[in-house]
Amino acid sequence: MLNQRVLSPREAVRTLALYHPPLAGRIGLRLDFNENTVGCSPRVLSKLRNLDAEQLAKYPEREPVEVTVADFLSIEPSELLLTNGVDEAIHLLCQTYLEPADEALIVVPTYSMYRIYAMAAEAKLISVPLGEGFQFCADSVIRSITKRTRLIAIANPNNPTGTVASKDDLLAIALSAPEAAVLIDEAYFEFYGETMLRAWEKAPNIFVARTFSKAYGLAGLRIGMLAGSAEQMSAVSRVASPYNVNAVALACLPDAIGDQSYIERYVEEILEARVRLERSLEASGIEFWPSRANFVLMRAGPSSAEASRFVELMRQRGILVRDRSSDPGCKGCVRITLGPREHADRLLSALQETFDELGTARGASRV
Amino acid sequence: MLNQRVLSPREAVRTLALYHPPLAGRIGLRLDFNENTVGCSPRVLSKLRNLDAEQLAKYPEREPVEVTVADFLSIEPSELLLTNGVDEAIHLLCQTYLEPADEALIVVPTYSMYRIYAMAAEAKLISVPLGEGFQFCADSVIRSITKRTRLIAIANPNNPTGTVASKDDLLAIALSAPEAAVLIDEAYFEFYGETMLRAWEKAPNIFVARTFSKAYGLAGLRIGMLAGSAEQMSAVSRVASPYNVNAVALACLPDAIGDQSYIERYVEEILEARVRLERSLEASGIEFWPSRANFVLMRAGPSSAEASRFVELMRQRGILVRDRSSDPGCKGCVRITLGPREHADRLLSALQETFDELGTARGASRV
Repeated sequence: MLNQRVLSPREAVRTLALYHPPLAGRIGLRLDFNENTVGCSPRVLSKLRNLDAEQLAKYPEREPVEVTVADFLSIEPSELLLTNGVDEAIHLLCQTYLEPADEALIVVPTYSMYRIYAMAAEAKLISVPLGEGFQFCADSVIRSITKRTRLIAIANPNNPTGTVASKDDLLAIALSAPEAAVLIDEAYFEFYGETMLRAWEKAPNIFVARTFSKAYGLAGLRIGMLAGSAEQMSAVSRVASPYNVNAVALACLPDAIGDQSYIERYVEEILEARVRLERSLEASGIEFWPSRANFVLMRAGPSSAEASRFVELMRQRGILVRDRSSDPGCKGCVRITLGPREHADRLLSALQETFDELGTARGASRV
Repeated sequence: MLNQRVLSPREAVRTLALYHPPLAGRIGLRLDFNENTVGCSPRVLSKLRNLDAEQLAKYPEREPVEVTVADFLSIEPSELLLTNGVDEAIHLLCQTYLEPADEALIVVPTYSMYRIYAMAAEAKLISVPLGEGFQFCADSVIRSITKRTRLIAIANPNNPTGTVASKDDLLAIALSAPEAAVLIDEAYFEFYGETMLRAWEKAPNIFVARTFSKAYGLAGLRIGMLAGSAEQMSAVSRVASPYNVNAVALACLPDAIGDQSYIERYVEEILEARVRLERSLEASGIEFWPSRANFVLMRAGPSSAEASRFVELMRQRGILVRDRSSDPGCKGCVRITLGPREHADRLLSALQETFDELGTARGASRV
C-alpha cells in the first residue's frame, strides 16, 4: 500500500476565508479604499527622490524613527512599535495573546482583518452587532465578555460605518476585560480627533493602532504603528521581525509627520467634503450614516443588486466606490471615500447623475 | 479583595528569546549583514526616483508583479507568494503548518528566525547539529524526523557556515517527512547556483524561499518570496495580508530582476573576492569553512573573547564584521561578508593588519 501521508495546513487555515480586496484594474477616481486621493506631503516625495543605493541595500533600522514618532505622539519609545501597516499590528496582537479556543470579540460590521487573524490563531470569534443605526453599544460588548475573552478589537471611528465609540465606553470595556488585549484601531484618527493613546495608564490592557495609509497618503509604503504599555509592548515586539518595516517608509515617516500643516489642510477639505456629501445624500432621500471618518456609508437600495448596480453606474462615470453589501447589516450598502474639494465636486456630480438615472431622487433639492 | 486578573502574553511569547541584531551605529564598510555593499542596479534607483504621489497613496497590488517574477523563475504565479522579506515567508509557513507541540526541525547553526517563529507557534524545536566541519548530514536529519515533525527549515547555502546540502539529500529529507513543510531557504542562491525550485513536483511538501536583500541589494525594501506547490501556496497565502509587500518594492522588483547582467557582474566579483579571502585565511593559518555564499565564517580564536577582540580591531580599521560566537558550535567565530573588488582590497588589508596585531600569522606568505 502506498504511503498516503500528506502535508496538510492547520484546520484553522484550511477553513479561513480568503480576503481578496478588489484591487485589480482600479481606473478612475479612487474613492473605494479610503486612501488619500491627492497623496502625501511634497516633503515625502522629495525625501524619496533623494534616497541612495546604500539606503536600499541596508537592513532597515526601526528604532531611531520610533523615537521620533513617540516624541510626536508624546509617548515613550518603549510604548511604540512601528509595523508593516496596521495589518501587522493586528497579526502581532493575535499572535501574542490568543491561544486556541480563546475568544476574540469584534463589533460588526468592521474591518475584515481582525476576524482573519483571530481565526488564524484558532480563537473563537464572537461578533457583537452594532446597535440601531450602527450606534456603538458598550453594554452589548461588556455583556459578551467571558473568562475566555482575550482580544477585543474596535475600530474607532469604525470602518465601514464611520460611527464612533466614546472614550468612556472604551475605557469601561477595557476595565471589564482585564485579561483581554483591547485594540482601539485609530486608522481614521485624523478625521475624528479623539484618541485613546496613553489610556493604558488607566487600563494596562489597552492598545492603540494608527496608520499612515489614510490621511498621510502612504498606503503604498506600508507603515502603521501599535502603542501600548511598555510592559505589554515588549512582549508584542518579540514576535515581530526586526526588519518588519521597510527603509523607504522609515526614511519618509519623519518628513510625513513633520509637515502637519499639510495634513491639517487636507483634513479640513475632507471634513468639508463630508458635509457636502451628507447634505447631498439627505437631499436625495438616500439613507446614510453620519460619519466621523473620511468616508460615508450609504444604502443604494434594499438588496445587493442595487449596491452592485450603483457601483457600476459610478464606475461608468469614472468614480470608484466600494460595495459593502456582504458586510453584516450592510445589505445594499456602498462606502464612498471623500477627497478634497475638486474630487468632491466630481463625486457629487457623478452621484447626482447616478441618482437621476436610477430615479432615486425624490424631487429633493439639488446640492 | 482587589481584582488581580491581568493581561498576560501566551507562554510561548513570554519565553521567546529576543532577536535584536546589532544594527545601531553601523559606521564603516558593512561586511556584517551579508548585504550587497555597492547596492542595487541603477535601473532600480531610476524607477524609485520616478515614483509619484499616487503610487505611494495606493494600496500595493502584489499580483501583477508575481506574474513577472514567476515568469522569470519559470514557475506558475499560483506557485509564488511575494513576502515582506524572507522573515515573513518563515512566519507564514509556521502559522500555516505548526500546531502547538508539533516538532520543528532545524540544522544548527543556522538563521535565527526559524527558531523564533517556530517557538512563537508553540512548536517543539528539534536542533540537529551539522556534522564535522559544518558538513550537512542528511542521515542525522532523517533520523530526527518523527510523526510530529511538521516543519523542517534548511538554509542552503547555510548561514553562518556557507556550507551546502545536495539536491538529492534535500529531496530525500522531504520524501522522508511527507507531513512536514520542508523549507529550503535559498537566500544566497545567486552565489551558489543550485536550486530546489519546482522540486515540489517530486515532493509536494517542498517550499523554496528567495530574497532580494542579498545579491540584489534591496534589504531596505523588504522583499522576498516563497514558492511551493499551487495547492500548498494557496493555504499559505490565506494567512498573509493582501498588502504585505510595499509598493516601492513592487514597483522596483521588475527592474531589479530585469537587469541580470548587473547581478552577474556583481556575483562574479564576489566569487573572486571569496577566493582571495579564503586564500588569505589559509595563508595566515586561520581556521575557516569553505563557503558557497557571499560570506565566510572563520575562527578568530578558541573563545568568544578572541572573536569579540577581532571584531573590535576590524572596526577600528573601518570594517564591520559579525561576531557569531553565540551560535551553536561557533565559539570564537566571526562571519565576514564579501564585497566587490575594491571592498575586498580594503578587507584583506585590514585583515592582514589585524592578524599582525594579534600575532596570528604563523610566518605564512602574505597575500
